[in-house]
Amino acid sequence: MTVHDAHSRIHVTGPRPDIRVPQTRVHLTNGETFDRYATEGPGSAPEVGLPGLRADWIVERGDTEAYDGRETQLLDNGRSAVRRGAAAEEWQGENPQPRKAIAGKNVTQMHYARNGIVTPEMEFVAIREGCDVELVRSEVAAGRAIIPANINHPEAEPMIIGKRFLVKVNANIGNSAVTSSIAEEVDKLTWAVTWGADTVMDLSTGDDIHTTREWIVRNSPVPIGTVPIYQALEKVNGEADKLTWEIFRDTVIEQCEQGVDYMTVHAGVLLRYVPMTADRVTGIVSRGGSIMAGWCLAHHQENFLYTHFDELCEIFAQYDVSFSLGDGLRPGSTADANDEAQFSELRTLAELTERAWKYDVQVMVEGPGHVPLNLVEENVVLQQDWCKGAPFYTLGPLATDIAPGYDHITSAIGAATIAMHGTAMLCYVTPKEHLGLPNRDDVKTGVITYKLSAHAADVAKGHPRARDWDDALSKARFEFRWRDQFALSLDPHTAEAFHDETLPAEASKTAHFCSMCGPKFCSMKISQDVRERFGSALEPGLDPEVGMKEKSEEFIELGGTVYVEPRA
Amino acid sequence: MTVHDAHSRIHVTGPRPDIRVPQTRVHLTNGETFDRYATEGPGSAPEVGLPGLRADWIVERGDTEAYDGRETQLLDNGRSAVRRGAAAEEWQGENPQPRKAIAGKNVTQMHYARNGIVTPEMEFVAIREGCDVELVRSEVAAGRAIIPANINHPEAEPMIIGKRFLVKVNANIGNSAVTSSIAEEVDKLTWAVTWGADTVMDLSTGDDIHTTREWIVRNSPVPIGTVPIYQALEKVNGEADKLTWEIFRDTVIEQCEQGVDYMTVHAGVLLRYVPMTADRVTGIVSRGGSIMAGWCLAHHQENFLYTHFDELCEIFAQYDVSFSLGDGLRPGSTADANDEAQFSELRTLAELTERAWKYDVQVMVEGPGHVPLNLVEENVVLQQDWCKGAPFYTLGPLATDIAPGYDHITSAIGAATIAMHGTAMLCYVTPKEHLGLPNRDDVKTGVITYKLSAHAADVAKGHPRARDWDDALSKARFEFRWRDQFALSLDPHTAEAFHDETLPAEASKTAHFCSMCGPKFCSMKISQDVRERFGSALEPGLDPEVGMKEKSEEFIELGGTVYVEPRA
Repeated sequence: MTVHDAHSRIHVTGPRPDIRVPQTRVHLTNGETFDRYATEGPGSAPEVGLPGLRADWIVERGDTEAYDGRETQLLDNGRSAVRRGAAAEEWQGENPQPRKAIAGKNVTQMHYARNGIVTPEMEFVAIREGCDVELVRSEVAAGRAIIPANINHPEAEPMIIGKRFLVKVNANIGNSAVTSSIAEEVDKLTWAVTWGADTVMDLSTGDDIHTTREWIVRNSPVPIGTVPIYQALEKVNGEADKLTWEIFRDTVIEQCEQGVDYMTVHAGVLLRYVPMTADRVTGIVSRGGSIMAGWCLAHHQENFLYTHFDELCEIFAQYDVSFSLGDGLRPGSTADANDEAQFSELRTLAELTERAWKYDVQVMVEGPGHVPLNLVEENVVLQQDWCKGAPFYTLGPLATDIAPGYDHITSAIGAATIAMHGTAMLCYVTPKEHLGLPNRDDVKTGVITYKLSAHAADVAKGHPRARDWDDALSKARFEFRWRDQFALSLDPHTAEAFHDETLPAEASKTAHFCSMCGPKFCSMKISQDVRERFGSALEPGLDPEVGMKEKSEEFIELGGTVYVEPRA
Repeated sequence: MTVHDAHSRIHVTGPRPDIRVPQTRVHLTNGETFDRYATEGPGSAPEVGLPGLRADWIVERGDTEAYDGRETQLLDNGRSAVRRGAAAEEWQGENPQPRKAIAGKNVTQMHYARNGIVTPEMEFVAIREGCDVELVRSEVAAGRAIIPANINHPEAEPMIIGKRFLVKVNANIGNSAVTSSIAEEVDKLTWAVTWGADTVMDLSTGDDIHTTREWIVRNSPVPIGTVPIYQALEKVNGEADKLTWEIFRDTVIEQCEQGVDYMTVHAGVLLRYVPMTADRVTGIVSRGGSIMAGWCLAHHQENFLYTHFDELCEIFAQYDVSFSLGDGLRPGSTADANDEAQFSELRTLAELTERAWKYDVQVMVEGPGHVPLNLVEENVVLQQDWCKGAPFYTLGPLATDIAPGYDHITSAIGAATIAMHGTAMLCYVTPKEHLGLPNRDDVKTGVITYKLSAHAADVAKGHPRARDWDDALSKARFEFRWRDQFALSLDPHTAEAFHDETLPAEASKTAHFCSMCGPKFCSMKISQDVRERFGSALEPGLDPEVGMKEKSEEFIELGGTVYVEPRA
């Protein structure tokens, strides 16, 4: 979908004709074009869902089989569905049979990579990233990158999360007990993807969780993540101590069959770590973390996610679901950053990473949260060291706690910094963080804020093609190509609307000045004149002083002014 | 002025009764209070101006005298004023005689500091910063901090700029040829100060520059900065090559007499540096820099600001005007960051810093601009090294160029980072940067974005009292004191409005949950329960495992749920 007349969609074809990688082509007024990473996204009605882009690739590998799958129960949609005897809005599109690995097979991208197999998914990703496919394969094989790609989510366009690649952005959506409908959540998904979200997490906690997720997965061109313990908790009426491994396991299979690509699992919240949080300013702020802490304390037993971790790995390997190892003990305030509880859990997440890798299951590791700027780097350095380079996926972090209403910004500061040091994916924070549920505008603001943070990190890391984008926009700015500045910006509509506020006339879009200085007083214009008139002073071998003297005389002859009347 | 019912103004009295330092007291619902740095700001009508807080201190030093001053000319307000035969809106308040140093005297705060004199201004600043006054005196004496305080701006509340102190924020206002009135500019000044601007620069370039500035200075409780070359250029009809030292000098004296506290002077743009910019992506983007580059090239002479720098120092010493040494060759795109042109000029600014210090004139040094995040630290490290610790004052820097409309955020990332490494003051960037002139809302967004960036740096630097604010807010958050969260936040109105969007009822302001999770599913609540029920497990000397086992049994006995019904 285009967001501006100057944008069109192109496709780069890979080594086989059904690998068609979408890119956004920006058409500039000087005849040049600039191609950008893009997610093609929804082109069909939400009721229909997206085509199964990867369906053939999955089937032709011959290592999976369709099966009847688990029967959906009313309780999957919560106790109100049980009361009503039905879910709110049943999924209306096709309901394909779920697939899983044939007994004895492992169908993860990591498994293929480790066996030297280059999948179409890897080819797709290599084209998106503009790199050699061998880099993709080897990073996935080593566990330093993941391609979240559940075989039951063939609608997703393959993407990669790892520090050698472009920094990615996740957007959270999902209903809660307080508010929102299925249609709203599907709309937020589409909206988030339009502005550049690379993955979306469905964090629904209210009614109709199963059906909401079905609508979301069927309409999502990006990987979908969830936190299965949220749904499991709904099934036990919100009473954490009633949770069991069996209920959790059943919920995980339900979600594997629907096509969830990665799941947050708080298996690192160990019984002995819980007391470490008692003296914190803000205790345990992760919902999943507090549920598991509550369970551990109520039963005085070790976290069942930890004790059953190998069984989880076996399940994930059958569907290629990736772990997002949850940081249930992350700090909820700058005061609690980098403390014993946080780093103890990280040690356990490192242990679990290696356990998952034994099953060729893909893993990323979640990180904070709220961290003073001087302590940010330590987070990613330790995570990369302890977790052997497994991708780090952080929530911000917020660099200060004093600005509710502006936490997209307090966190963008920490996010850009932690990504520069090697974090592979950033979970967005919207302006509503800590205050309310994000609406459509908040989702857009959150995604754009995080896209610019991720890109700032790409530039800082020296990603091969990252700064080209900045340079294209800066050149347009220097040359007063206003329309090109808008078209190249992350949010063309806002850029143009802001320009309109001061200089609305069409003529001003081609004017050689801007509203900051007005027509007679423009440094960019002066600087261009300097370049035009004195550029030859820089010819190789020419003494700049001499060149400038000549040009100085010529300059005075020509009228001696560096100002040119605007065209408008 | 209060921004919320929970806020009141208190005054801390210094060693003499007329040193009364305003602070904002936040009254919390748990009976505690939290006191914050504040600027008292306007309490009178704009037509009247503010009282001369420092007037007695200046007079009683006995080293200044009132004099007739330079006669205001029509051209001071631009060529339209000449045409009309009058300025637009004459200043209506009192027009006190200007003062200057008695012949042979030096009246700068640096001069006093170097002579061991502790001024009331220093006492005032020490109370604001919560530090010993000797730290203030010694840092000013060493040139590592400045107290911008023109003797003709007695309305200003003394403040300090230096890396040992709280990071400060400047807000730019000012008219341009395209738009805006005097009343609008005074309103922007007041609005910027309300939200926490520590200094304000009047960058007017259109008509009525002199009169606009008079209104601004008389109404400003914060130091006012200007770029005098802008007004000088207006006086020569915008033709840079017609500028002369005499016209510039006359303009500087005009502004010294009005009470401008610091002036940006682009004396580092040397003739030989100009060709270094020809191959840049965005050339010279500083307006002052391009004016001086144009002048140097037209005349093939050295920058007259450089050649007459000692005369400027002599003038500044008579009024206690501080230099803000302009970075006329700063990069205008990430592509041009940290290049030869930029660092050559910085070397010259270092030389000029030491020349100004010979006259006991206060100096800060301006910095970029647009810098990839990995190159930010180098800017402040080199500046601090070369300029012997003189305060650094940077514009952002923007960490990427791809997000016009969001450059308050792209720059907040660079700003927090550069401040953490020692930058003393940050010049704000509004969402309209590169696109249009900021309106009232943009000014507020810019100031708040920069206040949170500055505070993030204060926290990262370990400023003694900085994190107390974060902790107070985080504790309020953990204890569900919603009203206290709003009252403690940088922008209480926005925080409350966002909360209202999801949970508008008054009862929800005291509810023990938030809209993210709803009443039944709240991690903060779970975590509080954990602390209450298992806190004793942490009693010193108690085996945590044993303590937890006991508590676990007790927990099950009490009903075995970690959930508590909400009050609301």
